[in-house]
Amino acid sequence: MAPGREMRFWGWGEDAHAGAPPHHGIAWLEEVLGAPLKSARPAPDIGAVELSKPRLTRRAAAALRAIVGEGGVREDDHSRIVHAAGKGYPDLVRLSAGDARPAPDAVVLPATGEQVSAVLAACAQEDVAVVPFGGGTSVVGGVEPERGGHRSVIALDLGLLTRLVDLDQRSQLATLEPGLRGPEVEHVLRTRGFTLGHYPQSFEYATVGGWVATRSAGQASAGYGRIDELVEGARLVTPSGDVNLATHPASAAGPDLRELVVGSEGILGVLTQVTLRVRPRPPAGRYEAWMLPSFEAGQEALRACVQEEVSPDVARLSDEPETTMSLALAGLEGKRAALLGRYLGARGIERGSLMITGWEGTPERVAVRRRATTAVLRRNGAAPLGAGPGRAWARGRFHAPYFRDDLLARGVMVETLETATTWSGLPGLLAGVRSALSRHAPFVACHVSHIYPTGASLYFTFLAPQDPDDPIGQWRRAKTDACDAIVAAGGTITHHHAIGRDHRRWLAAEDGALGVEALRAVKATLDPAGIMNPGKLLP
Amino acid sequence: MAPGREMRFWGWGEDAHAGAPPHHGIAWLEEVLGAPLKSARPAPDIGAVELSKPRLTRRAAAALRAIVGEGGVREDDHSRIVHAAGKGYPDLVRLSAGDARPAPDAVVLPATGEQVSAVLAACAQEDVAVVPFGGGTSVVGGVEPERGGHRSVIALDLGLLTRLVDLDQRSQLATLEPGLRGPEVEHVLRTRGFTLGHYPQSFEYATVGGWVATRSAGQASAGYGRIDELVEGARLVTPSGDVNLATHPASAAGPDLRELVVGSEGILGVLTQVTLRVRPRPPAGRYEAWMLPSFEAGQEALRACVQEEVSPDVARLSDEPETTMSLALAGLEGKRAALLGRYLGARGIERGSLMITGWEGTPERVAVRRRATTAVLRRNGAAPLGAGPGRAWARGRFHAPYFRDDLLARGVMVETLETATTWSGLPGLLAGVRSALSRHAPFVACHVSHIYPTGASLYFTFLAPQDPDDPIGQWRRAKTDACDAIVAAGGTITHHHAIGRDHRRWLAAEDGALGVEALRAVKATLDPAGIMNPGKLLP
Repeated sequence: MAPGREMRFWGWGEDAHAGAPPHHGIAWLEEVLGAPLKSARPAPDIGAVELSKPRLTRRAAAALRAIVGEGGVREDDHSRIVHAAGKGYPDLVRLSAGDARPAPDAVVLPATGEQVSAVLAACAQEDVAVVPFGGGTSVVGGVEPERGGHRSVIALDLGLLTRLVDLDQRSQLATLEPGLRGPEVEHVLRTRGFTLGHYPQSFEYATVGGWVATRSAGQASAGYGRIDELVEGARLVTPSGDVNLATHPASAAGPDLRELVVGSEGILGVLTQVTLRVRPRPPAGRYEAWMLPSFEAGQEALRACVQEEVSPDVARLSDEPETTMSLALAGLEGKRAALLGRYLGARGIERGSLMITGWEGTPERVAVRRRATTAVLRRNGAAPLGAGPGRAWARGRFHAPYFRDDLLARGVMVETLETATTWSGLPGLLAGVRSALSRHAPFVACHVSHIYPTGASLYFTFLAPQDPDDPIGQWRRAKTDACDAIVAAGGTITHHHAIGRDHRRWLAAEDGALGVEALRAVKATLDPAGIMNPGKLLP
Repeated sequence: MAPGREMRFWGWGEDAHAGAPPHHGIAWLEEVLGAPLKSARPAPDIGAVELSKPRLTRRAAAALRAIVGEGGVREDDHSRIVHAAGKGYPDLVRLSAGDARPAPDAVVLPATGEQVSAVLAACAQEDVAVVPFGGGTSVVGGVEPERGGHRSVIALDLGLLTRLVDLDQRSQLATLEPGLRGPEVEHVLRTRGFTLGHYPQSFEYATVGGWVATRSAGQASAGYGRIDELVEGARLVTPSGDVNLATHPASAAGPDLRELVVGSEGILGVLTQVTLRVRPRPPAGRYEAWMLPSFEAGQEALRACVQEEVSPDVARLSDEPETTMSLALAGLEGKRAALLGRYLGARGIERGSLMITGWEGTPERVAVRRRATTAVLRRNGAAPLGAGPGRAWARGRFHAPYFRDDLLARGVMVETLETATTWSGLPGLLAGVRSALSRHAPFVACHVSHIYPTGASLYFTFLAPQDPDDPIGQWRRAKTDACDAIVAAGGTITHHHAIGRDHRRWLAAEDGALGVEALRAVKATLDPAGIMNPGKLLP
């Protein structure tokens, strides 16, 4: 990333961040893990990190410097280390242990779309693989600097491409460069009265280009739509030239190439501009919490909301274990816990399922929509917990990755994965994945993170004492079993984290062998030398 | 099409249909055309139609009969003639004149998806081009039986594939075979309490497979969504094998191959199943008409509705010429016309713009939504004309193609074309296309047929006295100028009629040369022999 935009190389975000360390709920964690938490391992020293020898030839480096200038090609250790991986569990395990061996040979920072074109041409010429790098927040190995048989590999950091190219207020369309991070996107739009409304957990660091390249979904996507629903135009710079997708609200002009570009994860080219639907900035927002009698009852309530077209913009439903975890980590104990227990007990809820709902818009519309949602939720047995816990959720909505860092430093394997299926398929998918993960982790929790008229996503979190001798093997076995279970139950292998390096072997279950061949044919056309993001997406 | 499903070979629908002949408004038509209407030319005699000699080899015919049975391969003149073309203007001109020379060499009727696979394999083996044929309602030459350099060509009529494969009521998903026509789709769903809600003008004859293959939009798509928004799964049988796209409500698993299949117009393979989102059948519906002070004011009203999320399910806005035509053809004259004039005059509307709005759902929801839409329309100067003209529109919503037949028989060139762009681009697109068409036709009318938060579609109708010496050349010149104007103004070359044969040369303006190459690569993978629907979609 560009200067001043770096995360901790071994974890999430910045040291200065007021995180959510597990000072609450340590007892609970030790109980579910069946083991004491270790004392926190100190952060690794960047000076002691192991790196492979850089392999960029002098000729390639000179060709790249001729395009992006002297400062645009970084071969120093620091730059290489902070681009050595994404933020997946195996990435953090390796980097925390001081291992950045797969680092790119150099980091290149283009300042314009034209420079991106020229860099790709030079890399094809010089046999250099290119890994497009936005926020570097991939949790599926999407920015792993693999050479893929090429002589060397660069991270193409898009952190200088941060312009608002155009805002068409009348059509509610913003054309953005890919390097803008979440808060930057919202800032440039807010000053003009608009919002994108896209709030994934990675919001603070992930970029708009990364969102589009990975089919990101945000916490308010039930209301604002997934990023793939918001893209109306794009420019993809490929080694074979540019694919300029015209901006139309709708078209019947053959297969929709936007949908080839969206989710292409850098294997076809680099998004240098995207045109996204934006909305007038909502003057009001309200978040509330509810307790549902059970996870199943909560799913029924959400299904009713979305199928009756009274869905809130944010809809999140935790299963009973996740609900217990949330309450434990929030430090809800003693008198307050007893009060909550009595309140829920009076409503027939013993071990409930926590739901967060949120609405945004004009105060009038929020009121009208909230009333409509509330009626359906109450009909389904929801007990209101009020706006307090809703606001608390909204405040902490981007903090979970810090919590993961803390747990990892204390010897806990913590990982998440997500899938989606139809409403009919949901119980089987839930049971299958829960059962697979339970073989590897003493604590498995799940929440419904996104709802659709025809189905919903399931987001799993699992915790286990880390195997100090083979932490990555331990993770891989759990991940593999979970992915196999997802596919066996008819779920999608990823609802919003993308394919990257980690899900490649399950793609054919989704697209079929012939579908994968069709994608390979597209890649061969746009990237004939195969330099774009090797080892990602395609099996 | 299968027995009992045939349209008039030279025009739309059936003779028995109570159409809307131009008995009203003849004077108006003659005035705008500047020429008297001719007396209606009698329908052509199918026995006198000219046909090319069939070229299917005996070996190919035998191979096909071995798959679909004796009755499944039709080589008779009648079968060939009714599959000789779609229903575009040049198609009807040719067939009305008794020319069915481009007829397919045979018509093949598979009864199962497996038979479709086997037929494609046999055709690849025997060098036979395959034109998938659903309702045969293409107005862009999408079912033109071109050989594309192959020895012969068959029409693959999907009229026997009419099963409801599955209805998942809980997930509101229906899996349908491609040959079901609009009324059949609604019938099988209605008996189970559901609707697809897809009502293109071709509803009575077009098929679900054709809708998906051409990215169809229906008259209520503002509410129910375009067909491409409703597809959640599909099976595409190709010469290289099947592409089975799993049904997921959403996924981040790479490029969305559903969007390659949707809109593929038969050039990649044959859709043998599609899984579509359905909805509970609405118990209530209300259609109303309004007069807006001008076309521009009407567009502003619709933009406000859709951007404020109070859009009706049906939203159609005619420009002033189309409004005049509608009133003239409805036979509104004398006292009633004067009454309407006084009513509108009192509201400051002199030569207004007619809008149709429709809402469907529970009576309560219709009432709530109608109130919300109405407030925005009134704020934008809409004068209500009540439910009467709304109901009249709904009754006649599928009749325009019959009217076209009548005019054609009376020596009038009548053609329609559609495009879409952003709200900002709409005035320029409108002016450009109107100006291009005005060079070829004394009467040019336009309506907004579909609205989106970021833009809208424009649907043009133009009338001119037919050039009896070169009717197709006359049409081509007008069409070419209009398409050039669309592209110059940044519109999509087609909003819901697809590319077919007629729009091919403008596809690169939409997808770019490299995008077209990517599509070619996909086709080469799925259809290596190039037998699927030659001469369509790709330039």
